[in-house]
Amino acid sequence: MALIVQKYGGSSVADTDRIKNVAKRVAQYHQRGDRIVVVVSAMRGVTDGLIALAKNIAPLPSEREMDMLLATGEQQTIALTAIALHALGVPAVSLTGAQAGIVTDGVHTKAKIHNITPKAVHELLHAGSVVIVAGFQGETREGQITTLGRGGSDLTAIALAAALKADLCQIYTDVDGVYTADPHLVPDAKKLNEISYDEMLELASLGTKVMQSRSVEFAKKFRVVFEVRSSLNDNPGTIVKEETKSMEGVVVRGVSLDKNQAKLTLVAVPDQPGVAARIFKAIGDAAINVDMIVQNISHGSGTPATDLSFTVDKPDLLKAKQVLENLKPTIGYQAIITNENIGKLSIVGVGMKSHSGVAGKMFEVLAREGVNIDMISTSEIKISVVIDLAKGESAMKALHAAFVS
Amino acid sequence: MALIVQKYGGSSVADTDRIKNVAKRVAQYHQRGDRIVVVVSAMRGVTDGLIALAKNIAPLPSEREMDMLLATGEQQTIALTAIALHALGVPAVSLTGAQAGIVTDGVHTKAKIHNITPKAVHELLHAGSVVIVAGFQGETREGQITTLGRGGSDLTAIALAAALKADLCQIYTDVDGVYTADPHLVPDAKKLNEISYDEMLELASLGTKVMQSRSVEFAKKFRVVFEVRSSLNDNPGTIVKEETKSMEGVVVRGVSLDKNQAKLTLVAVPDQPGVAARIFKAIGDAAINVDMIVQNISHGSGTPATDLSFTVDKPDLLKAKQVLENLKPTIGYQAIITNENIGKLSIVGVGMKSHSGVAGKMFEVLAREGVNIDMISTSEIKISVVIDLAKGESAMKALHAAFVS
Repeated sequence: MALIVQKYGGSSVADTDRIKNVAKRVAQYHQRGDRIVVVVSAMRGVTDGLIALAKNIAPLPSEREMDMLLATGEQQTIALTAIALHALGVPAVSLTGAQAGIVTDGVHTKAKIHNITPKAVHELLHAGSVVIVAGFQGETREGQITTLGRGGSDLTAIALAAALKADLCQIYTDVDGVYTADPHLVPDAKKLNEISYDEMLELASLGTKVMQSRSVEFAKKFRVVFEVRSSLNDNPGTIVKEETKSMEGVVVRGVSLDKNQAKLTLVAVPDQPGVAARIFKAIGDAAINVDMIVQNISHGSGTPATDLSFTVDKPDLLKAKQVLENLKPTIGYQAIITNENIGKLSIVGVGMKSHSGVAGKMFEVLAREGVNIDMISTSEIKISVVIDLAKGESAMKALHAAFVS
Repeated sequence: MALIVQKYGGSSVADTDRIKNVAKRVAQYHQRGDRIVVVVSAMRGVTDGLIALAKNIAPLPSEREMDMLLATGEQQTIALTAIALHALGVPAVSLTGAQAGIVTDGVHTKAKIHNITPKAVHELLHAGSVVIVAGFQGETREGQITTLGRGGSDLTAIALAAALKADLCQIYTDVDGVYTADPHLVPDAKKLNEISYDEMLELASLGTKVMQSRSVEFAKKFRVVFEVRSSLNDNPGTIVKEETKSMEGVVVRGVSLDKNQAKLTLVAVPDQPGVAARIFKAIGDAAINVDMIVQNISHGSGTPATDLSFTVDKPDLLKAKQVLENLKPTIGYQAIITNENIGKLSIVGVGMKSHSGVAGKMFEVLAREGVNIDMISTSEIKISVVIDLAKGESAMKALHAAFVS
């Protein structure tokens, strides 16, 4: 009699047939006596369709209204999933994020979960129902509908698993688990049986599309062990958990390529204290996540100035540029250069902590492939480089062959 | 500086271009200083699409889950309408039924409005915003999402107009107002400048598709004067209000044909006191509305028995039949006969109260057209007959020519 949180993403609930399949799987767990909370995303295409409608009306629709609009996608799936479970004779009740007690801050389209009061979920589980919760959404204390941004449904599942003290949290997706590299790009890639939060975190934040990093951060913080597995078969997936001794023997756990970043360079920023702080405060106030930051000496003449480069998620590029343009009168840089044609290539492994020479080997492999390195950033367990997007995939294959295969 | 509630139905918000047109109209009113509350339906086709998805999963989906599912349609429209108003520079905020303070009972898919606490609406109006409210939906005191059933968006608008003490309530639709008959079926039909609640009520309950009767009942009860008008032009519409002296000069205000009824006949029901009560209590408990009821002596032999016929909305036919089948052991009738091929034809006018011979003339016109009358029902201001659906339209034209033209 375990308490299990299962999350099914957009491809697992792509159409009514897939929703029926999800219901069959849930029914199996329910039949053997488990208490099940199901978190679902919007059906594939629904969110994009709604975004297209909004953009058809206005290029930059209000974020509050986008949340109002997009929250309907998951609400449709929960109702349909409940109906599918009823058809199998399984008692089931759907709850919106708000009804499930998911309280967030008020940053529309990117809200953070404040706390969860899963009273209704507990009561329904106690009454023997499967509880189906809309992923990706919540409500502020004032009753405003919010969404959690990309990967929000994973976050909903992991946060619910933490709040409910679930025995198991399963993230169902259309791949068998976490791979040493994207198997679509690297045919040699292998499925991992387990991976540490930190490694998963680096892979997530580096563009391996299995999960968004904040879901993994949340899981790490609340020690939620979860499994990434396929909704299309019964294969065991990849367990994500605290680092163990045995994990450290492997130097590089995986290789990842993030094609979703864009780079901004401010040319000839006055070299004065506090300038960088002003820039990144303004970017942060606009709720834009910055990833890599590099500062170089400018090659221009005149007063001391530096070039400042940083990367953001591609969809935030225009907004970030706007923020920088607003700062021009007060900061006084020379120009903004943007580049969307970049790839961020990374190798990740907790074993790096105790192995030296990894960076040197990585740069050597890239040099052999004729890849120019634009930016470099390192952490204890990963090394990332920004390179030309066109060379991303071949460089990734070379690194995978050198480190993982 | 009037406070105006405007309701736009599914055809007025059929696509993003229509939504932009709605926004333009609202912006005009807002610019001249009016405070505007806009109630919108789901975009045309959205509700039907969602119903199709649900039926694809289960033939009789749970009503609670259908409310969860269908409420998303209006929620999408309010967000898109707000975005369209923003694009015109008009401040606007969307509210779900629940957020607008619309509290209903718990009869899913056919909920009744309990009360409205339009605190959020008042505050937003006071701040200068247009307020856009999702029609057709509300929330129970326990926080369950409910829908108000067919025509629910009109009800939302009229109930909000009452709660807000609005100066004007405009129901925008795709026709210019209320006609003496359906102009698609009767080319001679004329638009009425005004009509009494009672006449509108009879026309609504008799299948003239402009509005559902309970919206008109609500308006009558709370004396909300409203105007039915077109969202496609600026023509004045039809004002619906209390009866006036001048209205009584017209014997027949309009002719109406309801094709959405179905008939059930219970053959050889035991002729005992309390039997009819038991039947209609059970039907009522299933939240099925009964329209006409006729009881005849049965032609069978044996113990005293009668035939009992009544009509319900076509979509309720199966459910009503099921209720009757469940009653068979306790009541002991002989058989159930159902007929979906009926039309309910009616003439309506407050002038009938003071004019005699109207029924005789009506039956004479029908006899001349060779139309057999199946059931008859009369009130002070209307006469209805149930006839063969196939003869409905020609009979309607004949009555319109005899009484109205």
